Amino acid sequence: VLASGEHRRSASVRNALLEALQSGVVSDERDPAILAGTVALVGGGPGDPDLITVRGRRLLSRADVVVVDRLAPTELLAELAPSVEVIDAAKLPYGRYMAQEAINAAIVEHAKAGKFVVRLKGGDPFVFGRGYEEVEACVEAGVSVTVVPGISSSISVPAAAGIPVTHRGVTHEFVVVSGHVAPGHPDSLTDWDALARLRGTIVILMGVERIEQFADALLAGGRSADTPAAIIQEGTMRGQRVVRADLGTIAARTRAENISPPAIIVIGSVAGFA
Amino acid sequence: VLASGEHRRSASVRNALLEALQSGVVSDERDPAILAGTVALVGGGPGDPDLITVRGRRLLSRADVVVVDRLAPTELLAELAPSVEVIDAAKLPYGRYMAQEAINAAIVEHAKAGKFVVRLKGGDPFVFGRGYEEVEACVEAGVSVTVVPGISSSISVPAAAGIPVTHRGVTHEFVVVSGHVAPGHPDSLTDWDALARLRGTIVILMGVERIEQFADALLAGGRSADTPAAIIQEGTMRGQRVVRADLGTIAARTRAENISPPAIIVIGSVAGFA
Repeated sequence: VLASGEHRRSASVRNALLEALQSGVVSDERDPAILAGTVALVGGGPGDPDLITVRGRRLLSRADVVVVDRLAPTELLAELAPSVEVIDAAKLPYGRYMAQEAINAAIVEHAKAGKFVVRLKGGDPFVFGRGYEEVEACVEAGVSVTVVPGISSSISVPAAAGIPVTHRGVTHEFVVVSGHVAPGHPDSLTDWDALARLRGTIVILMGVERIEQFADALLAGGRSADTPAAIIQEGTMRGQRVVRADLGTIAARTRAENISPPAIIVIGSVAGFA
Repeated sequence: VLASGEHRRSASVRNALLEALQSGVVSDERDPAILAGTVALVGGGPGDPDLITVRGRRLLSRADVVVVDRLAPTELLAELAPSVEVIDAAKLPYGRYMAQEAINAAIVEHAKAGKFVVRLKGGDPFVFGRGYEEVEACVEAGVSVTVVPGISSSISVPAAAGIPVTHRGVTHEFVVVSGHVAPGHPDSLTDWDALARLRGTIVILMGVERIEQFADALLAGGRSADTPAAIIQEGTMRGQRVVRADLGTIAARTRAENISPPAIIVIGSVAGFA
């Protein structure tokens, strides 16, 4: 949809978008007449259903239609009234659409039919969630949309394993990076050399499959092999597992322990705390 | 307390700490007998009182004692029962303690007296919140402690201004950095040259006073002067103000518009979206 580094839209869409996002709260979220025909993008948090926000939970309880994918905390769906239509994004017929376009189309279509649509997402909608694309789709279709942030797994999953992403006297920065493509891949937008030179905490999301390549890139960029590292599978959930090692050994340990997605990698002094 | 890069503790404290953090949820949070004598560090989110988590709000409603500072969403305190003791951290007598040590001491003291203590913090406890120091103080005193993550202003405040910290095809990484000390300051732990080389989004917290120095450091490190930039004052709250410019002009615009703390600086292509 967008060329790399480019982002264009018409002035009218831009203004509508700003209005939608900055208004923040729909004027009266208890009034079904006001919610009808609108969309709320709700961050569901890292997995534990009690880690959604109060506002997110309230909007979810008022939804006519909920669009979810496998990353959203599905336990939250058990609380919905039987009349609520739950749409599993993975089961949408794509046909002439890509998966994301089919999701956008489903959201818009139900809102245009007068429903209050909650798009329930894992973590935070704007952290590798493609949430902004969904906001744009609504705005371009003339549908009112509001965004409710969620607890990002990038911070909360390390915390659940006893790892603070920052700590006084140790690190004053953390970087969150997508592990969706390997360093050097044509689609990669990340300068792993620059990343390796940072002194602080590195959090890699969606990177289990390519952990060898990330570790190698950071080592090649000069990060020390004895830098503490950890990988956390299913963080904040009952199945949580944590493997601790260092940058030189974390990839081998991840394979030896059969860590599988969803999992989050943390590299830096703080990973050696607990 | 800690030398830069070092972090030591005894094996017993380390084990207690891990147990405290990994247990996550206190066994039954509805049972006052179980909560008595324990501490919960609760992330209050960016300011809007509805952006606390469901779990955080529930624990807050069961508190005997709440320790807050000016960064926590104080509107949440209005909902507390009159019997709850609210301690303003800014008003603690420090005497032989530093401010943080006095907070740690107050938390521990009330828990040891059998109270359920909620330490309500702004944003997330582990993002420049010194939360881990409070966890350590509890563990070292033999007090059970649990941590409830909060919506970090580093992600949610840009979002409230229409800025996603990541966006497909534009940036696959974001770095969150403390603006508490200037580049080159003896206490600075951040390599601003390396930061400047990153292609992604840079979010600077607590950096209004030194914005000229951060912009200069990023320009000197090679980041282009026409990189979009924004500064958001009092994000998610009624007083929210947003100033948009580019890296070359954001400091002057911040002064011209009299932006004052709390405010968050965002640098990168995404800052030019809305």
